[in-house]
Amino acid sequence: MKRYGKVIKVKPEKLAYYKKLHANPYPEVTAAITECNIRNYSIFYRDGYLFSYYEYIGDDHQRDMEKLSGMTRVWLAETDPCQEPVASAAADEWWADMEEVFHQ
Amino acid sequence: MKRYGKVIKVKPEKLAYYKKLHANPYPEVTAAITECNIRNYSIFYRDGYLFSYYEYIGDDHQRDMEKLSGMTRVWLAETDPCQEPVASAAADEWWADMEEVFHQ
Repeated sequence: MKRYGKVIKVKPEKLAYYKKLHANPYPEVTAAITECNIRNYSIFYRDGYLFSYYEYIGDDHQRDMEKLSGMTRVWLAETDPCQEPVASAAADEWWADMEEVFHQ
Repeated sequence: MKRYGKVIKVKPEKLAYYKKLHANPYPEVTAAITECNIRNYSIFYRDGYLFSYYEYIGDDHQRDMEKLSGMTRVWLAETDPCQEPVASAAADEWWADMEEVFHQ
């Protein structure tokens, strides 16, 4: 199992809608998360930033992330316009990877 | 069990030292974390921000946080000068609480 922490910005005018979507996520999204080997997935908000934490139990993270995107296109068409990558994100990054500096 | 997400800034000139401390935390700190009912505790870094995630299994979070501070004073005397609360933090907040907007 590998832990991931990621960060992205949420547009202030879209925050309420983003939270509403996540209060009742589409069933195909929650099923896709499980099928793509993601466990214990949380998203937290403060001050314009979203932070996500999850545990990945598969053996090909990149492949599973691509599979997840493919399975959740309708959902992402709603959530992507709510978000904006952080300034330091790479060109191919949406959620930006954080570095784990401690775990216990 | 309740999940917590928190955020704080780290001073750029102190980042290397903060990471070094957390690569080999004091044994009394790791013991105190366990005794204070904190589990699955991670800290992630990016762009000047630290994000922490943990799961609290006790029944009095505030009391356990105070106990933890008391048990880790020597450690906090090293780590506190590395950190700076976010601008929106309350007067009595160090790490600032984030709002959980999703969990699966």
